[in-house]
Amino acid sequence: MIDILVDILKDTKEKNPLIHQITNYVTVNDCANVTLAIGASPVMADEIDEVEDFVDIASSLLLNIGTINKRVKKSIKKASSKAKSINTPVILDPVGVGASKIRTSIVKELLKESKVDVLRGNISEIKSILKISSNTKGVDASKDDFDSIENLSFIAKKLSKKYKNIVAITGEVDIISDGKRAVAIKNGNDLLPKITGTGCMCSSLIASFCGTSNDKLFEATVLGILVMGIAGEIASINANKKNLGTFHKGLFNVIGNFNEEILRSMAKIKVLS
Amino acid sequence: MIDILVDILKDTKEKNPLIHQITNYVTVNDCANVTLAIGASPVMADEIDEVEDFVDIASSLLLNIGTINKRVKKSIKKASSKAKSINTPVILDPVGVGASKIRTSIVKELLKESKVDVLRGNISEIKSILKISSNTKGVDASKDDFDSIENLSFIAKKLSKKYKNIVAITGEVDIISDGKRAVAIKNGNDLLPKITGTGCMCSSLIASFCGTSNDKLFEATVLGILVMGIAGEIASINANKKNLGTFHKGLFNVIGNFNEEILRSMAKIKVLS
Amino acid sequence: MIDILVDILKDTKEKNPLIHQITNYVTVNDCANVTLAIGASPVMADEIDEVEDFVDIASSLLLNIGTINKRVKKSIKKASSKAKSINTPVILDPVGVGASKIRTSIVKELLKESKVDVLRGNISEIKSILKISSNTKGVDASKDDFDSIENLSFIAKKLSKKYKNIVAITGEVDIISDGKRAVAIKNGNDLLPKITGTGCMCSSLIASFCGTSNDKLFEATVLGILVMGIAGEIASINANKKNLGTFHKGLFNVIGNFNEEILRSMAKIKVLS
Repeated sequence: MIDILVDILKDTKEKNPLIHQITNYVTVNDCANVTLAIGASPVMADEIDEVEDFVDIASSLLLNIGTINKRVKKSIKKASSKAKSINTPVILDPVGVGASKIRTSIVKELLKESKVDVLRGNISEIKSILKISSNTKGVDASKDDFDSIENLSFIAKKLSKKYKNIVAITGEVDIISDGKRAVAIKNGNDLLPKITGTGCMCSSLIASFCGTSNDKLFEATVLGILVMGIAGEIASINANKKNLGTFHKGLFNVIGNFNEEILRSMAKIKVLS
Repeated sequence: MIDILVDILKDTKEKNPLIHQITNYVTVNDCANVTLAIGASPVMADEIDEVEDFVDIASSLLLNIGTINKRVKKSIKKASSKAKSINTPVILDPVGVGASKIRTSIVKELLKESKVDVLRGNISEIKSILKISSNTKGVDASKDDFDSIENLSFIAKKLSKKYKNIVAITGEVDIISDGKRAVAIKNGNDLLPKITGTGCMCSSLIASFCGTSNDKLFEATVLGILVMGIAGEIASINANKKNLGTFHKGLFNVIGNFNEEILRSMAKIKVLS
Repeated sequence: MIDILVDILKDTKEKNPLIHQITNYVTVNDCANVTLAIGASPVMADEIDEVEDFVDIASSLLLNIGTINKRVKKSIKKASSKAKSINTPVILDPVGVGASKIRTSIVKELLKESKVDVLRGNISEIKSILKISSNTKGVDASKDDFDSIENLSFIAKKLSKKYKNIVAITGEVDIISDGKRAVAIKNGNDLLPKITGTGCMCSSLIASFCGTSNDKLFEATVLGILVMGIAGEIASINANKKNLGTFHKGLFNVIGNFNEEILRSMAKIKVLS
């Protein structure tokens, strides 16, 4: 699989795909910068009268509900319909789903009526989608939600089959499944959840890679999660494993310089089935 | 008092309280990151249909009117009513009050009808609330507004008694009063007002500490202001007293590593009465 | 010309003008920080009920349509009318104009009905305004749009005469014209387009300088573009020409310490006519 990932990485840097992101105002600057750093181009537009125009010229569409409101909910619905009609990949980051009605309803509607090609959430969000009892505490996954790799893999596959898409569950170990295959990634470190937006940025990386890989969305998702985890590891060392401001900015240094050599030498990926 | 502050600092890191913040889109990323850095968890949600859900699970509610609009004004009112009904601490940052009708009206309404447990503003904002003639210049305090410590303490006490809450006036010297007691803090440095959001971040720190200290809101407010001021001093030295970008990121390094030793050795706090 | 630029730089640091910015939520934090770094004061307010109040006390008004929506469109119209009535300089950053109806219509309306004293865009945006065939790809200029300096200068002059204002076209070479004069600036470097918001920040710098130079808007615009380009050069060296996170934060270090000596020694400016 690693050779395919290398190809997607190179392709993205060469083709510079436009990634339309309807996202939250907390982490939007980091999301735009991570998109640029990996070689894609971001456009953040959420006005209902123009989202179709941007979906039309974009190579993928990322939907992030971190600061959802009724106005943007309508824009998300319109943009996802357009993306479905022209077969543009759609990535959904269901931030905080289960914590409020509006979040749960938009995620349900998107999964039911629209095309959601990649669904990436933490275990709490994913469990919430499964309607399994969940302790969504704000937008972060709580420790209690962490389960065995086998259980996570089972959940990811189950959801993936149900929605005919790619499901990624990120946490201490990340699980990605396309319904048939499942892989586990053990990159990452404990500073990543100590700054805001690393989940959002991970989704932006996935969307960037999906922008050049409509026929390899599973691998594009795996690569996005790998890049974020490896960047966390390198940036953490450069920040003496404790300096959050240095770590935050360091992520962009690593991602801007990410290459085949780093990927091949540092990826900790295991095929589960 | 310092022993109580040490306890609140430790408690916050251990209990990891969820802090609901309805805030502005200028400094929201810094506010989320400072909340995480001190050991709490941020959730930034401003949709009227979901704010009650988040107040319900949050340990405190921070209201910041930096980029207020009519939609968010309604959400603020609803969230503060919910917080009042379940006795969740409410912190108000009245950014730019006095500069426009909508800012003045929302602050007046909150102080009159809702529970505002902690009010933190610069001298210009606080004077505006007092209806004393004020030169609100955008959202920054102008030099002309700086007065004697005695005068500031008198104002803080007066307001605090009127609204039965904690009042903090931040500036070159910070004054905090609960109507009976008043303390002055002399930490901080002249780089803090040269980046945007240090006032907002200070309020996020206060809200984080209030999240574990509903019965010690005066001390939680003092601690929030101390942490911000001390972080400014250390980060300024690390930025050679002049590099604003390095200073900005350095604040998160210091706050993420803040501990009892730093607090005890650097706090410049004086009990006024 | 350089002596006038030095005067504007000093004036801005001394007079600390208030700059009202109605802008996008992607880069707003950087825009506020760059405004502070150069010695001005930012206020970001977009609620229609209060924009006139802020225009009233501001020294210039910056309009940036990067994440425009119908609500903010109305606020922009109201703010620009107010600015026209009291002769406050208005700077327009037409982000992504041509990519959607709402962007094109707001720019047309502002140029037709309001006072737009300075128009700064990339070549793709400027061509779109000229209704010349354009490949607006999101909000970034594509390579194909780059033309000869002579052609850019012709376009800038033509637009400048039509709208009786200053027109700046930024890219590898920046062209600024007031309809009679035109200058080319060759500062800048290839890291600037690899982080989001350097165009927006450039507009904030221009607006900051216009705030003290209502009678020298051409020079204020030239200075804003020079400061951004020179900052990019110095920050790039400090970031080993490759570290995007370090580069991003480094821009604020350079701009906060910008002075006459740096300006005189590094400005690459050529009078074209």
